Amino acid sequence: MTSSTKKIEPRRLKGFRDYMPDLMEIRSRYQSLIREHARLAGFREIGTPVLEYAETLLGQGGDETDKQVYRFEDHGGRQVAMRFDLTVPFARFVAEHQGDLVFPFKRLQIGDVWRGENTQKGRYREFCQCDLDIIGVDSVNADAEILSCFYRILSALNLGGFTMRIGHRVLLSKMLQASFPGLDSLGETSALIALDKLDKIGADSVIELLAKMPGASHDSARKLIDGLMSKDARGGTDRKWVRELLARSEQGLAELKRLENLLSVLEPIAESLKGGSLRLDLSIARGLGYYTGVVFETTLDSLPGFGSISSGGRYNNLAERFTNRSLPGVGGSIGLDRLLAGLEEMGKLGKTTPDVVFVAVATDDALASAVQLANTLRSAGVACDVGLTPGKVGNQFKHADRLGYQLVVTLGTSEVQSGTYNLKNMKTGDEKKSLPRADILAELKLLKV
Amino acid sequence: MTSSTKKIEPRRLKGFRDYMPDLMEIRSRYQSLIREHARLAGFREIGTPVLEYAETLLGQGGDETDKQVYRFEDHGGRQVAMRFDLTVPFARFVAEHQGDLVFPFKRLQIGDVWRGENTQKGRYREFCQCDLDIIGVDSVNADAEILSCFYRILSALNLGGFTMRIGHRVLLSKMLQASFPGLDSLGETSALIALDKLDKIGADSVIELLAKMPGASHDSARKLIDGLMSKDARGGTDRKWVRELLARSEQGLAELKRLENLLSVLEPIAESLKGGSLRLDLSIARGLGYYTGVVFETTLDSLPGFGSISSGGRYNNLAERFTNRSLPGVGGSIGLDRLLAGLEEMGKLGKTTPDVVFVAVATDDALASAVQLANTLRSAGVACDVGLTPGKVGNQFKHADRLGYQLVVTLGTSEVQSGTYNLKNMKTGDEKKSLPRADILAELKLLKV
Repeated sequence: MTSSTKKIEPRRLKGFRDYMPDLMEIRSRYQSLIREHARLAGFREIGTPVLEYAETLLGQGGDETDKQVYRFEDHGGRQVAMRFDLTVPFARFVAEHQGDLVFPFKRLQIGDVWRGENTQKGRYREFCQCDLDIIGVDSVNADAEILSCFYRILSALNLGGFTMRIGHRVLLSKMLQASFPGLDSLGETSALIALDKLDKIGADSVIELLAKMPGASHDSARKLIDGLMSKDARGGTDRKWVRELLARSEQGLAELKRLENLLSVLEPIAESLKGGSLRLDLSIARGLGYYTGVVFETTLDSLPGFGSISSGGRYNNLAERFTNRSLPGVGGSIGLDRLLAGLEEMGKLGKTTPDVVFVAVATDDALASAVQLANTLRSAGVACDVGLTPGKVGNQFKHADRLGYQLVVTLGTSEVQSGTYNLKNMKTGDEKKSLPRADILAELKLLKV
Repeated sequence: MTSSTKKIEPRRLKGFRDYMPDLMEIRSRYQSLIREHARLAGFREIGTPVLEYAETLLGQGGDETDKQVYRFEDHGGRQVAMRFDLTVPFARFVAEHQGDLVFPFKRLQIGDVWRGENTQKGRYREFCQCDLDIIGVDSVNADAEILSCFYRILSALNLGGFTMRIGHRVLLSKMLQASFPGLDSLGETSALIALDKLDKIGADSVIELLAKMPGASHDSARKLIDGLMSKDARGGTDRKWVRELLARSEQGLAELKRLENLLSVLEPIAESLKGGSLRLDLSIARGLGYYTGVVFETTLDSLPGFGSISSGGRYNNLAERFTNRSLPGVGGSIGLDRLLAGLEEMGKLGKTTPDVVFVAVATDDALASAVQLANTLRSAGVACDVGLTPGKVGNQFKHADRLGYQLVVTLGTSEVQSGTYNLKNMKTGDEKKSLPRADILAELKLLKV
């Protein structure tokens, strides 16, 4: 192909992004931190394919999600689809490998997922999720372990304040049933959808929506929302209103007890880590039909309207579409790209200045020495870049400066012959000539403190 | 959905794999090592989408590759395709962002790619590539930098011996032209395809193929192959045969000189790192039309027939389909999943025994203390798992044993009250009772040496 060929416009698909080096660096660092904290807590990482049989993925996230799934027929005439989350593939994984896994199995998975949603600022069609789950046990210990791990990880990510709100899907159902006698399951679903919008549209609008439910009135809707927004349901210790509302639900009171136990276990940890705050919020709904116990969601304190950056909860039958084996679990997800979009909005993602020494090559005959020197520095753990167009030292200095490097070593004919090097500090302008090359590691160590 | 619903068979698509924890651990570790070494050498990581416009990707890897590409129409009626390598998307990336990049740009990219090839042992339709490239400069320095970085990284991966063979695409053309006067460009392409099979089908079969080329004879073909397989073209220092063959090609001799310079720069580095060996091999062809200078490929010494695990070379016009700007580059790729398949075949991938302390919870009232203790240990960098079904200590011991944990801490009512813990060494069977919990970090540190 010659350069006179008609050019193709270099463009990305709508809703897809390139990760430039500065952003990619923080994305990789966050993934490493999540990996490291998951490893410290005994989680094991797994991977599943991006493509699955369409029947494995579809019908799991509701009609709306099904419409967003990228699906097609592959070369072998199979109906395939790109994963839209990491949970449904994990269900397939657990069912397929149940004979090889030791339960309870603590799983980490980090990977991109795809949804053909309408794009908007900070929302992409390709984004990374980081999932932690404990599968194969239904106990308050597992709930405590998952929630404390998410709390630990989010604290480590240095988000400048976050709030993890903890609720309970079954408790919320019981509260709805107690508030609106005669509410059927369809009505309950609509009520949960309405409650999910509480942060977005405000109390009055949610009350309007709830008042239309079967068995509900404007008055009972207002009572419920007032209660859910009162201190009683949001971190207080008394919870008189909740207890009264649930008085006739034995299961409700038992779950409330379990949730209070969980909070008393978690609060000292949140206290000791100090990355954010943790509190009860019984209004949290988190989707429909999926969760069967504790649920949580996390928001950035500086961006209250931004939405959740990490959420999850207990579910009782992860893999029931695939196996008769009952596999209760608890888990959640960090929306890494959502989180990064949030940090970007907060102005917390800046340029990174790489801590790299630049070796300029003044003459052709210095190339071998420069490459040797770079090798020596790198073997000692010193990050180091090297001039690629020998001779034009001025250009190499300019290049080093544009990349934000602070120290430049120069080698030319005379330095090669005398076993020396020149060192320039780009920040101060200081220049030292003919330093002994044998001492370079000590010299650099001195300068980088 | 109830459990009586018809089950879906949990199955993967042919050619796709799940990564179980042991394999995933080494895959993640290798990716981290590659990242770390690339960072040490001043490379910056980027990311590009998995999906691109089909026109961006197609027509780049030949008809055979085009047939393997996963392509479909998306929700917006766009023809899209999943990337089949990281090079073509990088060309689009560079053309699109050329105003924002500082050239020469040293790029790292790690990501999965998809090809609907016929599956065979150790070959998958989804696999990970790790690419390093330097774009925007044509110099022997850049060649040296790329090759030494690949050599450093492969050394760090502890492969048990590898051989990096270095050749030159233009030199090989000149040698073909000198051997077969009258060879046209179509014939040259066929000859390169034949040469590419040298390792697989052997010298005699390649000679048969070459003898059919226009301008070739059985005799001239044998002469070329004998020469290419002689020490002269494979690491010797004399290269008398090469020089004679290229006597009438000024460009050929100049490129040979540059290649010899490059080797003399690289050899001391290979010597100092000792992870493998490095040698000239002028028979290396590495694909068609793509490379315009030095090329390399790497094989595992224990698996000579396994094929290349890392390869690359110089190319002169990465982005010419997108831009008139000339962007010469040099780069290569590590086929991470190929590499792991090789290590698996060598029996080098075993079970990993996680270095994790297990905290068993003997009684319900010990849960809070156990979660606290886990938090303390993790904050101190000690990996730690915690019992999820309180009460059944025997089961928790069994669980810890199955996971390969060597140390188990037990907390029950009396330990909580007295601020102590019990410690069992699963390997030796030793058990210590009522140790002071305040000293646990010191005690564990002692045991792990």
